[in-house]
Amino acid sequence: MRVFIAGIDGYLGWSLAQYLSARGHEVAGADTFFRRAWVEEVGSVSALPVYSIDERLNAFAERYGKPLNFRSGSLMDYEFLAGYLADFQPESIVHLGEMPSAPYSMIDQQHAAFTQQNNVVGSLNLLWAMHETCPDAHLVKLGTMGEYGTPNVDIPEGFFEVEFRGRKDYMPFPRQANSFYHLTKVHDTNNTMFACKTWGLRSTDIMQGVVFGTRIDEMGDDPRLCSRLDFDQCFGTAINRFACQTVIGHPLTVYGKGGQTRGFLPLRDSMQCLTIAIEHEPQAGEYRVFNQFEECYTVEELAQKVQQAANEVGIDADIAYYDNPRTERDTHYYNPDRQHLIDLGYVPTHNVVAEVKIMLQDLLPHRERIMEKRDILVPDIRWNGARRRSELITVTST
Amino acid sequence: MRVFIAGIDGYLGWSLAQYLSARGHEVAGADTFFRRAWVEEVGSVSALPVYSIDERLNAFAERYGKPLNFRSGSLMDYEFLAGYLADFQPESIVHLGEMPSAPYSMIDQQHAAFTQQNNVVGSLNLLWAMHETCPDAHLVKLGTMGEYGTPNVDIPEGFFEVEFRGRKDYMPFPRQANSFYHLTKVHDTNNTMFACKTWGLRSTDIMQGVVFGTRIDEMGDDPRLCSRLDFDQCFGTAINRFACQTVIGHPLTVYGKGGQTRGFLPLRDSMQCLTIAIEHEPQAGEYRVFNQFEECYTVEELAQKVQQAANEVGIDADIAYYDNPRTERDTHYYNPDRQHLIDLGYVPTHNVVAEVKIMLQDLLPHRERIMEKRDILVPDIRWNGARRRSELITVTST
Repeated sequence: MRVFIAGIDGYLGWSLAQYLSARGHEVAGADTFFRRAWVEEVGSVSALPVYSIDERLNAFAERYGKPLNFRSGSLMDYEFLAGYLADFQPESIVHLGEMPSAPYSMIDQQHAAFTQQNNVVGSLNLLWAMHETCPDAHLVKLGTMGEYGTPNVDIPEGFFEVEFRGRKDYMPFPRQANSFYHLTKVHDTNNTMFACKTWGLRSTDIMQGVVFGTRIDEMGDDPRLCSRLDFDQCFGTAINRFACQTVIGHPLTVYGKGGQTRGFLPLRDSMQCLTIAIEHEPQAGEYRVFNQFEECYTVEELAQKVQQAANEVGIDADIAYYDNPRTERDTHYYNPDRQHLIDLGYVPTHNVVAEVKIMLQDLLPHRERIMEKRDILVPDIRWNGARRRSELITVTST
Repeated sequence: MRVFIAGIDGYLGWSLAQYLSARGHEVAGADTFFRRAWVEEVGSVSALPVYSIDERLNAFAERYGKPLNFRSGSLMDYEFLAGYLADFQPESIVHLGEMPSAPYSMIDQQHAAFTQQNNVVGSLNLLWAMHETCPDAHLVKLGTMGEYGTPNVDIPEGFFEVEFRGRKDYMPFPRQANSFYHLTKVHDTNNTMFACKTWGLRSTDIMQGVVFGTRIDEMGDDPRLCSRLDFDQCFGTAINRFACQTVIGHPLTVYGKGGQTRGFLPLRDSMQCLTIAIEHEPQAGEYRVFNQFEECYTVEELAQKVQQAANEVGIDADIAYYDNPRTERDTHYYNPDRQHLIDLGYVPTHNVVAEVKIMLQDLLPHRERIMEKRDILVPDIRWNGARRRSELITVTST
């Protein structure tokens, strides 16, 4: 199948290009290297070295036996985008080309405005380009479980039956996102749903949990093929951050009581799920939602799993609690569905500790790179627009 | 009360500046004259002559006894916006500064991208500027009843009690907007709700019906003070368009069967309602939704009311049905609440025919201006991105 990946140089994109190529799909993709620039801007670096795009492309051609179809450019450049899609005529489009960080979007007005403009207009451009150049293609759009917020009821996959004052309708489930970044994904959801209804586009909107992991098997031992792995407060997600902190002996930074519950999944599961979506396309005009995660954990439970994995490979890891820089509930009800992917054959890995042990082995050779950035491991971007480094707090176990 | 109006040169803004000043409020406002440019871009003109801003400001000072505090600039210019708010220190901010046309947003990719960027980022900038310069001010944000779409259940005012799998929550009512313009208002709603929750801003989000009317009493007979009145397919809303068509003997252009039901209200009721919102501010951190309309009608019923008003002033008016350029249901359930404003004292005018008769009298002296544009009265902007003039269709009465 011809698959176009927007954001092919990123954490998920570079892995997916390989996962799909190894399965025999024909992959093309675009990137404008914003992720590299953003991580540098916030004073950090990928824990695993990221090679130049030329080195990556050379390694890709060697490993997979043919060059990767790649062009440098942005979704904000409509002529570039529509031209590329018209040439490649993708059957599937995986949209990973957005600014993915909540804290980055909350830094100040400029970062919030950039985030919303880049994500919303970039995604809107993609819908128009599909409508005009490849209307039969299937858009696999990366959203986030964070779109739903933390409602006090179960979270269905996108839609639910509403009974209100004696009448019934089948409606989109309300979304209550908690950062200007997460809100862009809600905006995308609404734009995409409309494009499917009005233009007959087909889309799978992926509400993905937090991804962790340093590798997929396809990468082998070629460092040019390996993934990036961020650990800063903006682009480092919970388990990735904890694993990097572990290898330099820094306490694991839990925000608040750590009772925030989220869905998580290893990088290899994310690849498996995205591929299932690609290989099982919806009908023309259909807009469907997949909740994509392996299991739900509290942040504290995850820290404890990282601690356990560390102990099993002979490293001591402490857990420290910091006052939460975000405005969010740190204890709440959380029970999302994730049946659609299971029905299509998703087999969860289901072993966080084993995955973290692989991560620690991958990260240990790079502890010097992480150590150099140890001063930025405690977050200072606050949801009220201020900058203040979080302080240690005392949490009493319940 | 110090009230800042974004979009003060527009259809609602110019009227509201006068309505509030006549009631003793201190008004300031900004505009970048986009509405004038857009109407010209789509090949049309206001049916009522619009004077230059200098002439308008002179007339305003003469009528209301002091100059209007006005600056030319855009919400997209954050320094301008934050500087103006810091200087004026408004107690209320009425946000009318958005691109308000569904067809305009559907013309092509460029118009869709402009609409979403201008509206979403402009409104986001306003939230940031309030947070940074006047966090206690009350944001009266103009949304649209079109945010809700046409669900098969009653439409509450923004929120409803959800019971799902045996648990309960009070949640935002799902929104299913039907154009890239209407979607911007949904995006704004989500951003504003978050800003109230996270920063403690206070906001009334107005889900307004379709406004019609040529005047409010405060304008008197000074043509420099009168409102603009658009009748083109982009900026002319249903009754305004019908009234202009009536005075030149053009058949009233109903799209499809005309069974589309919407909430409508006269310009004078819109002013009354916005002022009620301004004068009854919510608590800090409170985000509330008012559905703002006088009554619901089908488009066909409205055409018949315009026909009746025309007959009463001695004009013949025919109704013609055109194939619908929009993708929308032309018969559907529709039953929205509008109790919040009634509870705060809103007294609906409740006489469409009387209002239309005033409109026809105001418009008759300007029939030549409208007549010059008679070739653009039948819509050609279609929801599939094509341009094709709608054709007459035969509708069988049911």
